[in-house]
Amino acid sequence: MAIVMYDLAGADPALRFSPYCWRTRMALAHKGLAVETVPWRFTDKDVIAFSGQGRVPVIRDSDTVVYDSWTIANYLEMTYPDRPSLFRGAGGQAHARFINAWADSVLLGGIARHIMHDILLATDPKDHTYFRSSREQRFGATLEVVQAEGRAHQLAVLRESLTPVRLVLRGQPWLGGEAPSYADYILFGTLQWPRCVSPFALLAEDDPVLAWLERALDLFDGLGRKAPRV
Amino acid sequence: MAIVMYDLAGADPALRFSPYCWRTRMALAHKGLAVETVPWRFTDKDVIAFSGQGRVPVIRDSDTVVYDSWTIANYLEMTYPDRPSLFRGAGGQAHARFINAWADSVLLGGIARHIMHDILLATDPKDHTYFRSSREQRFGATLEVVQAEGRAHQLAVLRESLTPVRLVLRGQPWLGGEAPSYADYILFGTLQWPRCVSPFALLAEDDPVLAWLERALDLFDGLGRKAPRV
Repeated sequence: MAIVMYDLAGADPALRFSPYCWRTRMALAHKGLAVETVPWRFTDKDVIAFSGQGRVPVIRDSDTVVYDSWTIANYLEMTYPDRPSLFRGAGGQAHARFINAWADSVLLGGIARHIMHDILLATDPKDHTYFRSSREQRFGATLEVVQAEGRAHQLAVLRESLTPVRLVLRGQPWLGGEAPSYADYILFGTLQWPRCVSPFALLAEDDPVLAWLERALDLFDGLGRKAPRV
Repeated sequence: MAIVMYDLAGADPALRFSPYCWRTRMALAHKGLAVETVPWRFTDKDVIAFSGQGRVPVIRDSDTVVYDSWTIANYLEMTYPDRPSLFRGAGGQAHARFINAWADSVLLGGIARHIMHDILLATDPKDHTYFRSSREQRFGATLEVVQAEGRAHQLAVLRESLTPVRLVLRGQPWLGGEAPSYADYILFGTLQWPRCVSPFALLAEDDPVLAWLERALDLFDGLGRKAPRV
């Protein structure tokens, strides 16, 4: 029986752009687990109320419900130990938590400032009021202003924040080493988010991170590359 | 036969403050390997010329010479596989490279701006001209100005840059998980550097990173805590 995954969708139900959901999609593909995704919108809180909270990704694996992308990755690793490892050992799991924390605290916020209004345009109309009011409260400015100021003043800072990734890629092809690991899916999800939801080019053409992203898009028969974009 | 390690020293030969050398000291202790350290100054290039380059740490293990803290950690892991693992698996090693790159590109530069003049005061007089001219060229300002401006304007940014560490420590006691790994020694070396060479308090009293540092100072019979400070 396929794992069911509740996956953030836009006005177009085929548009899937959550950075956290993409981490989980890639982790499921890495494990070779069948998945049925359910398009979910920000305001569909009642649809995932069974998980005891209100955010995606949520997965249902037979009788087990798990939410939060990091928790899901750990669940999959523990529950399916005979399938390809997401972390390749206890140290890999522990150290991936740092990469997850870095992506969440440094990269996600930096990217958000460049695409907040584009996200609004992509979301389902029923989500607009919720999305605008919750995010404008968080940023203390309109989404139009956040995005315009981000693009005008924060692009160099954002690109600079990827320096650790560039240093790693000088020594190995993936964050996971010779092959992708969940660390790569953390970064992939984070970058697939703006790639799917916005036409704005966050990475320079000659950035080694872009070359890495292109390789990641080809994984699992092009799972990421086939995904619809705005 | 003990491993010989060339270790950056100050005017006081007992003062050891290089962030990279401290990573290696902790890695050697983790492996339970005997070490004889040789105090080395910035201008003692001829003393380590046998390594083919001019920076420490350099280790000599019988007939093998290895330099660069990251390379040394990998050498120790490969050469002494039966001793406690620094990385706990291939994933741990690959992901630790990211933490190493983050510490080098984000944290070291941020800390440097708060302690550059204090480092000068601690170095051997024969190193003063070299240290001042090479670092002032890098920063484009006098060491006095770099340090004063860093402390006046960059402390909040520096503390903020440790956010990923704080997030990790909410979920596990060490960057390595339930026990310290080389990832912890990367961070430890980076923070032991200002701790040994400067009286300036980089971490707030209530910072969970400081609590982690206190625990790290107690490792290996207080190896880090016993180290002389200015």
